[in-house]
Amino acid sequence: MSVDQVLAALIDHTLLRPDALAGEVDKLCDEARAFGFRTVCVQPVHVARAARALARSAVGVTAVVGFPHGANMTDTKVFEARRALDDGATEIDMVANLGWIREGEDAAVTDEVARVVTIAASVGATVKVILETALFFDERKEAAARAAIAGGAAFVKTATGYGPGGATVADVLLLRRVVADAAGVKASGGIKTRAQALALVAAGANRIGASGSVALVAI
Amino acid sequence: MSVDQVLAALIDHTLLRPDALAGEVDKLCDEARAFGFRTVCVQPVHVARAARALARSAVGVTAVVGFPHGANMTDTKVFEARRALDDGATEIDMVANLGWIREGEDAAVTDEVARVVTIAASVGATVKVILETALFFDERKEAAARAAIAGGAAFVKTATGYGPGGATVADVLLLRRVVADAAGVKASGGIKTRAQALALVAAGANRIGASGSVALVAI
Repeated sequence: MSVDQVLAALIDHTLLRPDALAGEVDKLCDEARAFGFRTVCVQPVHVARAARALARSAVGVTAVVGFPHGANMTDTKVFEARRALDDGATEIDMVANLGWIREGEDAAVTDEVARVVTIAASVGATVKVILETALFFDERKEAAARAAIAGGAAFVKTATGYGPGGATVADVLLLRRVVADAAGVKASGGIKTRAQALALVAAGANRIGASGSVALVAI
Repeated sequence: MSVDQVLAALIDHTLLRPDALAGEVDKLCDEARAFGFRTVCVQPVHVARAARALARSAVGVTAVVGFPHGANMTDTKVFEARRALDDGATEIDMVANLGWIREGEDAAVTDEVARVVTIAASVGATVKVILETALFFDERKEAAARAAIAGGAAFVKTATGYGPGGATVADVLLLRRVVADAAGVKASGGIKTRAQALALVAAGANRIGASGSVALVAI
């Protein structure tokens, strides 16, 4: 297995532009199959199409939930997650309630994550929790990561790609230190080069989210 | 009545930062009451708090739905709108499915809007439809505005404030020309000065969305 193949298997091949076209979703799925990416990561409205396109493949489908602001009611996130799972999602990338993270309402963050994890676990799906790390000081990043893990998150994830900053080596090191072996760390947001992706993996990321994924593995 | 008061009554006083604090919502509501703004515009997670704060006032509560990407399933938007109305929202600002606008799936846009309008109408609430006009050529903007009105929208609205551009005089003129007297036009996105707000009203806007609203009326 080449480094390209190892890296490809860590990548959620991502298309979250709000005005994405059906044909672009098809191309994303074709690329994911051709390059051996782990999943495609799409908006809820595209989950069913991606799941059909990837039905007879090893590529999963990640649906975002509460994306990109996370300021929806918990019931709405649960509803959206359930629908995405019904539509064929194998993984859920939910945005945490960022106001609660800022307020220090860590128990509320945990409870919300647990609600979505319960739904996902019933069909064997993985939940990643987006913390939008660029918004917060380290103490809040650490507390948010602990809160997400306490709620049963399989991964903590850096950024939506629509916030004030993306994945940094410093944030991945911080998240990996906090979650240790208890969960995964997904680096996402602004990952455009192979060198950047490899540095994030070296820092502790075991999943990478990128829209320009082909450029990361095909050089 | 002064021009300040006329302008204030057109303004949705807006706080949509995804990490907004409860105390900031309280301040928003206090300002809305003091300056006579039309509504406060908040994320779903803050609707109940704002509705309690404004219960004995003339200020309404606008809840955003499917915000800011609009790439949620229609069922999720309906669920989120119903919950916001239950929580006390008097107006719903929903983001249209921007992929459908780009694809030319105008009938689908209409059907989705009609689903939310039906829910809102049952409690006498107003629905505005955000078209994220900066994403599209004029033909698509016009078709999207027609589609929203066909679905029963009370207003078409320019921008989320999180897209590639905000309210422009050109877009407001276009939207007003398309909807004529059949609906309102809400200008939103990057409105920071009184002169800008007045120019947008002159172009045909009868609602203004702004987060720095106090600076628009208190000079």
